[in-house]
Amino acid sequence: MLKVAFLGGGSFGTALAVMLAKKGIETTIWTIDEHGVEDINIKRENSKFLPEVTIPSNVTAYRELDKAIENSKVVVLAVPSQVIRIVSRQVAPLLNKDQILVTVAKGIEKGTHKTMSEIMEEEISTNPVVILSGPSHAEEVSRGIPTTVTVSSRDMEAAKEIQQIFSSSSFRVYTNDDLIGVQIGGACKNIIALAAGITDGIGYGDNAKAALMTRGMHEIVRIGTKLGGRQETFYGLTGMGDLIVTCTSMHSRNRRAGILIGQGKTMEEASKEVGMVVEGIEATKAFYELKEREGVVMPITDALYNVLFQNKNANDAVQELMSREMKDEHSFIEV
Amino acid sequence: MLKVAFLGGGSFGTALAVMLAKKGIETTIWTIDEHGVEDINIKRENSKFLPEVTIPSNVTAYRELDKAIENSKVVVLAVPSQVIRIVSRQVAPLLNKDQILVTVAKGIEKGTHKTMSEIMEEEISTNPVVILSGPSHAEEVSRGIPTTVTVSSRDMEAAKEIQQIFSSSSFRVYTNDDLIGVQIGGACKNIIALAAGITDGIGYGDNAKAALMTRGMHEIVRIGTKLGGRQETFYGLTGMGDLIVTCTSMHSRNRRAGILIGQGKTMEEASKEVGMVVEGIEATKAFYELKEREGVVMPITDALYNVLFQNKNANDAVQELMSREMKDEHSFIEV
Repeated sequence: MLKVAFLGGGSFGTALAVMLAKKGIETTIWTIDEHGVEDINIKRENSKFLPEVTIPSNVTAYRELDKAIENSKVVVLAVPSQVIRIVSRQVAPLLNKDQILVTVAKGIEKGTHKTMSEIMEEEISTNPVVILSGPSHAEEVSRGIPTTVTVSSRDMEAAKEIQQIFSSSSFRVYTNDDLIGVQIGGACKNIIALAAGITDGIGYGDNAKAALMTRGMHEIVRIGTKLGGRQETFYGLTGMGDLIVTCTSMHSRNRRAGILIGQGKTMEEASKEVGMVVEGIEATKAFYELKEREGVVMPITDALYNVLFQNKNANDAVQELMSREMKDEHSFIEV
Repeated sequence: MLKVAFLGGGSFGTALAVMLAKKGIETTIWTIDEHGVEDINIKRENSKFLPEVTIPSNVTAYRELDKAIENSKVVVLAVPSQVIRIVSRQVAPLLNKDQILVTVAKGIEKGTHKTMSEIMEEEISTNPVVILSGPSHAEEVSRGIPTTVTVSSRDMEAAKEIQQIFSSSSFRVYTNDDLIGVQIGGACKNIIALAAGITDGIGYGDNAKAALMTRGMHEIVRIGTKLGGRQETFYGLTGMGDLIVTCTSMHSRNRRAGILIGQGKTMEEASKEVGMVVEGIEATKAFYELKEREGVVMPITDALYNVLFQNKNANDAVQELMSREMKDEHSFIEV
């Protein structure tokens, strides 16, 4: 019987587990949180990260990693990007070579600037690694509200298998062989979402946010193509699609953190209040370093870096960003 | 003394008049609605189209076209796209050659498929015509909430003059010499906004809407480049920027009309309830004809055309659109 394991008891992993379970697939969730295991197995809910969703009986939570992974065809790493390496290392000795690894983490590694697939391939050289990304807030996925995502891999046959396993009438999965583009777009959009949240928090409106997102899209394309991704990928589901949903939905933790920062809270206070990992914070630092290395102009990333890591006042940073003296639209978008 | 005339007493024209008036520029508003003239000149408000905004004393409304235009350096046509020709015709004999014409209408002409600038240049060959477009909901503009727009013209010197006159610390104006691209993007995004509203009305979520907008963006690029616009313009303020604001803001009348249609109302009922011209309806028909002529694939436009003009059930149309059997992301976006 087909079995899929999810490592991490957060909102998106749980939502995907619920979605697959409703399709009749047996799923497991590995979480180190004892309360989380009880919550899922007995109360049939994930009250901390995905409240008000009933978890079907064919979802089982474990605290033991080996039990969660045992006999599963697919192992999905649904943990924050900065712990992907350590979890990969824990998983490696437990795998057999028929298992396909998937990750839904969006970010690049602190210090090394490596993508999620690069990290996983380094730690687990024996199994194919598939990236699943796109505009897919957990709350909607778990409720069966229509969602489209993209899968990518160096092993596109494995990606197609994941497409088959995960597809349903309300969860549509497309393939894209641009593994770099899919990952850079997904990581970088969190920076723009944080910045968009800040404009919301300051009290700017929809007009300013749309302009910021438009400019942000161009920052993603510039750094992403420089790093080897394809322009059309950035304008697809994992770039523009995910950017839109993350900047406009209240489901987005990155946007919510930005709103709090725009209202005057510190990065630490905002992270604490959101209560989940805010991927955009590490992404800002990583992409700030990358753009310096690559010589790419990214004014929004600069502004956010100054706010998050140099104690710059958020209002001043946004004001400066919006009032740069540029006259034609090309200069507005490009530099 | 610099004077700017606005023809049309709708929300956006009024908002721009208020914005310029606050900069110290004398503005006039021409409206054929007697009640509207009184409302503006005596009560200092536009209660029908821009409620809760106080209109400064240097804004004067007229029912007489010649009085509104007299001595104005700039004449802004702020009427629905389908009456731009008739208003241009009325204005033509009253102009002197130093006056610059501007329009903020977004659409293409029924039957002829001409852009706003083409119509105005046909009717008024003596004066420069400037297009002003971008993500700029009237409510925010009138309140001084930061907004960025683009101006374009065959006469870029005239566009630069408009840029100077309209720019302020909260209203930033950029130039772009892609006159076709600026106009096609602004007209076509209303189709996608109507469709996005329908998905909202049906009860789909942010994930599905983001996917629809991503696909919609590609429809705009495909038809727009075929008609002679530049790709980078469509990914700029007047394309992507305006698409985002129109699809996500409750200020958008196109989106609001879509929501009502998604909830089961007819096109006529929805238009009536919104109470202002829903540009996306005529745009759908026009772009449906254009795509047939040009041989461009536009599935969202097709689906919306069937809903609006062929009595197709909105829910069925969206379901079909979302469930087309395509496997890689390129096919999802392209065809």
